[in-house]
Amino acid sequence: MRIDIITVLPELLRSPFEASIMKRAIDKGLVEVHFHNLRDYTTNRQKSVDDYQFGGGAGMVMMIQPIDDCIAKLKSERTYDEIIYMSPDGETLNQGMANKMSMLKNIIILCGHYKGVDQRVRDQFITKEISIGDYVLSGGELGALVLSDALIRLIPGVLSDETSALTDSFQDNLLSGPIYTRPAEYKGWKVPDVLLSGHFAKIDKWREDMAYEHTKNRRPDLLED
Amino acid sequence: MRIDIITVLPELLRSPFEASIMKRAIDKGLVEVHFHNLRDYTTNRQKSVDDYQFGGGAGMVMMIQPIDDCIAKLKSERTYDEIIYMSPDGETLNQGMANKMSMLKNIIILCGHYKGVDQRVRDQFITKEISIGDYVLSGGELGALVLSDALIRLIPGVLSDETSALTDSFQDNLLSGPIYTRPAEYKGWKVPDVLLSGHFAKIDKWREDMAYEHTKNRRPDLLED
Repeated sequence: MRIDIITVLPELLRSPFEASIMKRAIDKGLVEVHFHNLRDYTTNRQKSVDDYQFGGGAGMVMMIQPIDDCIAKLKSERTYDEIIYMSPDGETLNQGMANKMSMLKNIIILCGHYKGVDQRVRDQFITKEISIGDYVLSGGELGALVLSDALIRLIPGVLSDETSALTDSFQDNLLSGPIYTRPAEYKGWKVPDVLLSGHFAKIDKWREDMAYEHTKNRRPDLLED
Repeated sequence: MRIDIITVLPELLRSPFEASIMKRAIDKGLVEVHFHNLRDYTTNRQKSVDDYQFGGGAGMVMMIQPIDDCIAKLKSERTYDEIIYMSPDGETLNQGMANKMSMLKNIIILCGHYKGVDQRVRDQFITKEISIGDYVLSGGELGALVLSDALIRLIPGVLSDETSALTDSFQDNLLSGPIYTRPAEYKGWKVPDVLLSGHFAKIDKWREDMAYEHTKNRRPDLLED
């Protein structure tokens, strides 16, 4: 997979791609991630990427021209499966979407900043608008990081233990149940006996029951689907 | 506000706090953010923070001892309003929660990694479990960044134009409508006439209508609340 991220803040994106799973995936050659600084595509002398809103109001709006030019350049080099805009009013990301999108080959992620992008950008260039949740962030950069991580970890070969991703929360519409590690007792707080029993059938049954109970308590909506 | 983030990957967290709004808030002295590397709190010779699951299964589990010691040290220094664990099975973050939490004084955010933390950590130390959405990430670090950003931008004085946050999506259960900036025409794509009309009453009415229409089309669930 190749991910091209268009942003006014490439420096914000750096460290998460230089650590942990995302770094490993890049090092293994399973993913390529490129940052594109919108300021490099401005044609005005001040290198500004934003301007005031038509009709008045607080907050700056990102202009269409640098975005158009950056996307056009990328599209001249390869075909993209999706050109994504991160926005709180986009389709809310969930694990099913992440599963599907993890199979794409080339994607562009445009990070909005300030008040957002000129609507014509969304109307003309964007093929998919994604929100990571019902809250407002300073910009699309953290959304781009979240989306990238959610997709990258699902690419075969990225996680060292492939079964690990399959037993994650949401993969079967159940939340994960409780997990424990050593010591078996800490300050008087004990691990449930069944986990120390060595009866694997009992352990599996207990885990299923706990996952179901936990989901019923916390997210009954997941069981309705 | 003071945010203490407990993590095995402090280096992952760095760049987003060194850019944009979060950096500005820190520079202005409105927020203090501290990273705590769990490895500094291990008592075993290998400095390992995780161990195998009791009962078998893929994925490592973060041990209770380093987390206990790190939280205990922080609690000995000040009182915390919340000790938060980022987890996909936590309460789903939304703007209402962010508004409330932005008024807290001291919070700890514990980032899970690998398969998660020993359940006894959650039972004994955690006061609030938060999910940023129904998808699985490599660790709690990106969630901690998202939560920090969502809260920090709401602290008075952080955004240069205070009205800007108030007109964001979700603040009134409506998505923002379309926004435009110069040029009024680009490659034949025009800004709606009303925005160029100078009739501010008409513009306000149009914006309200568009926000309502947009919300009805994309997120009718928000209108039901």
